[in-house]
Amino acid sequence: MLGGGFGGVGAVKKLGDADVDVLLVDRHDYHTFQPLLYQVATDLLEPPTVGHPLRDLFHDRPNVRVKQATVTGIDLEKRRVSFAEMRPVAYDHLVLGLGATVNFFGVAGAPKHAFPMYTLPDAVRLKEHVLERWTAVDRDPDLIDDGALNVVIVGAGPTGVESAGAFAELYRQNLAKDYPDVPQDKARIIVVEAGDAVLSMFKKGLQTYSKKALEKRTVEIMLGEVVESIEPTRVRLKSGTVLNAHTLIWGAGLQANPLVSGLHLELQHGNRIPVGPDLTLPGHPDVYGVGDIAWITDTKTKTVLPQLGSVALQAGEHAGTTISRILKKKKPEPFEYEDKGTMATIGRRAAVVQFRRGRSLTGTTAWLAWGTVHLALLSTGEDRAKAVVDWTWAGFTHERSGRIQVDASER
Amino acid sequence: MLGGGFGGVGAVKKLGDADVDVLLVDRHDYHTFQPLLYQVATDLLEPPTVGHPLRDLFHDRPNVRVKQATVTGIDLEKRRVSFAEMRPVAYDHLVLGLGATVNFFGVAGAPKHAFPMYTLPDAVRLKEHVLERWTAVDRDPDLIDDGALNVVIVGAGPTGVESAGAFAELYRQNLAKDYPDVPQDKARIIVVEAGDAVLSMFKKGLQTYSKKALEKRTVEIMLGEVVESIEPTRVRLKSGTVLNAHTLIWGAGLQANPLVSGLHLELQHGNRIPVGPDLTLPGHPDVYGVGDIAWITDTKTKTVLPQLGSVALQAGEHAGTTISRILKKKKPEPFEYEDKGTMATIGRRAAVVQFRRGRSLTGTTAWLAWGTVHLALLSTGEDRAKAVVDWTWAGFTHERSGRIQVDASER
Repeated sequence: MLGGGFGGVGAVKKLGDADVDVLLVDRHDYHTFQPLLYQVATDLLEPPTVGHPLRDLFHDRPNVRVKQATVTGIDLEKRRVSFAEMRPVAYDHLVLGLGATVNFFGVAGAPKHAFPMYTLPDAVRLKEHVLERWTAVDRDPDLIDDGALNVVIVGAGPTGVESAGAFAELYRQNLAKDYPDVPQDKARIIVVEAGDAVLSMFKKGLQTYSKKALEKRTVEIMLGEVVESIEPTRVRLKSGTVLNAHTLIWGAGLQANPLVSGLHLELQHGNRIPVGPDLTLPGHPDVYGVGDIAWITDTKTKTVLPQLGSVALQAGEHAGTTISRILKKKKPEPFEYEDKGTMATIGRRAAVVQFRRGRSLTGTTAWLAWGTVHLALLSTGEDRAKAVVDWTWAGFTHERSGRIQVDASER
Repeated sequence: MLGGGFGGVGAVKKLGDADVDVLLVDRHDYHTFQPLLYQVATDLLEPPTVGHPLRDLFHDRPNVRVKQATVTGIDLEKRRVSFAEMRPVAYDHLVLGLGATVNFFGVAGAPKHAFPMYTLPDAVRLKEHVLERWTAVDRDPDLIDDGALNVVIVGAGPTGVESAGAFAELYRQNLAKDYPDVPQDKARIIVVEAGDAVLSMFKKGLQTYSKKALEKRTVEIMLGEVVESIEPTRVRLKSGTVLNAHTLIWGAGLQANPLVSGLHLELQHGNRIPVGPDLTLPGHPDVYGVGDIAWITDTKTKTVLPQLGSVALQAGEHAGTTISRILKKKKPEPFEYEDKGTMATIGRRAAVVQFRRGRSLTGTTAWLAWGTVHLALLSTGEDRAKAVVDWTWAGFTHERSGRIQVDASER
């Protein structure tokens, strides 16, 4: 099991009772609840609420081992995985859930100056950078006109929209009070989107609602604009506009983990590995691709499934179940994604939810639905109530939920 | 007001209603609740529970400004303080609460290899180092015999005892489960103390209780031993004994902030500034010394008060009250420390409490008393209940208590 994200954890869960030795390897010692990363970046949640110790998840499964190591190569012919920090490991079944890296689409300066939002260190680095800029302005207010407090967010997908809403709340409600000497009304939060809509994967009505809800929260939205280059304090758009901003958040695209290029496979858009209906790799029935690394075509709708936590979790669980079935000499079944709805939150009492059959929610109802679902999703074990207490309320239950190594200087 | 520790915060609290502009400056943007640092190092509490945003404490006091900056010089003649990051500031009244640094007493290798426990970055660095060592052993069990998991704690005062007890619980209860492949019974926790007792400032009975309670929790205690030198993986004692240990925690002594040497004052033991009964500096009735930087002789007992949070808080409050009285043309009063008892916790249901008049507690009762007092002390405002909720339970109240910059790479 390579990768301790939704895919890897989902697969291990389904193998915890099987008659097989399971090894889960991740380069971090924690599982990241990626949908809430933006809340770490905006100080609403602490890293341990969003990063849960991987070892903690499988204490009660004696057949499961967790190791922290970095994969350096995968030999599909010899069925062997090599690591930077430990000896190679041979496998009978392999689940690839190694995730993705941010795709900057060749924008000049982006790898160096943009803040991605894919890992927990990403979120912590962004959070610290923004606080540092406010402190700098507190000492030297002239920096405001240079854009020290301005945040440009590239991409009006869920990551961009949720980040924009959360930064607006952080700026207008919290930091405004913390820094009474800073004329914070000059601090801009700007979403730059190449397309012509906010949350384009949602229905028209929800797009309009989201745009208005963001604008009501003082977020500026620039549609049909493309970033050309990024400098530490300036963002240049293809239209010629130059934005003064010391912070640029990249919420615009992913590409599969670079390790896929060593697999000698034909890759799809974003370097994703096309997998079959049973999630196995072409020509490798013992290797499964799940999560952001995989290009999964839905059995029912024939569309390619999006890179979402819910898809990764279900695919991981399916891979685990399939291996378990094979061990019991049962036939594998094709993967069917159950779409429980897509949601995005903009701020307190403002969110959008879209269900498969066309129903949708906005406002307070959507916001409460969002909160309930995410609290429930935070749980990866069977006992949801226990996990919610352990994890979200770690602070006062005296559970040691902080056993994670988040290195803020890590790239 | 220089320094946002117990002293500085105590002083500002008492000046929040006075007819005076108050400027509180600290090099961090958070107040550190030092008595619980060891709980951060042992993953029990998260940094935001122990480091509270300074700006947050005085939102409702319009006469109070908080700035984050590093003091570079104090000119007592010109009544002016200079900073690394902002323009100098002139003062009418100055409260010095700049704290201390760790005193390694010239032990070779200590500044480089020992882990002090005075600041929040200290605690985070220690925590990450210990987890990293466990992960290394998980990959290569041979490292155990080299002492990769062994922790040597120098000093059997409250810092040393509380750290030892907390590490024992972390090791035996949590990490043992997290790392089933690691033969953790080989991991040693050793307290090295130059004197002949554990918690020497407590009564004999409490000393014996504490020593037994630690030993019951598998902590080894070496009395009458002095550290000679420290290498990354070895600790050499003056007796000739060499301990294999990749981690050494320094809980053995403090010296006042090095800035005191530029004040042209005669200093006391540990470079502390001797202050008068009204806490002012000799020859400078407009400058107060509070907290770990000050050498305060108790008015009643004529003994020098220890470097404790409770002393710092009361001294800070007294300085604030005195300035407030002077502004109202009232006469200052001498400082009297009210000793509410001293306590140290060893682990779950094990602690010692010693009250002024000779009464004492041990075991579960002491542990509960310790918990209650520390929860109450975590509050620095008038409304204790509210602060406890805001602070300790920050995770689920959705208060943004995480607005702090903890740079783990900072020294």
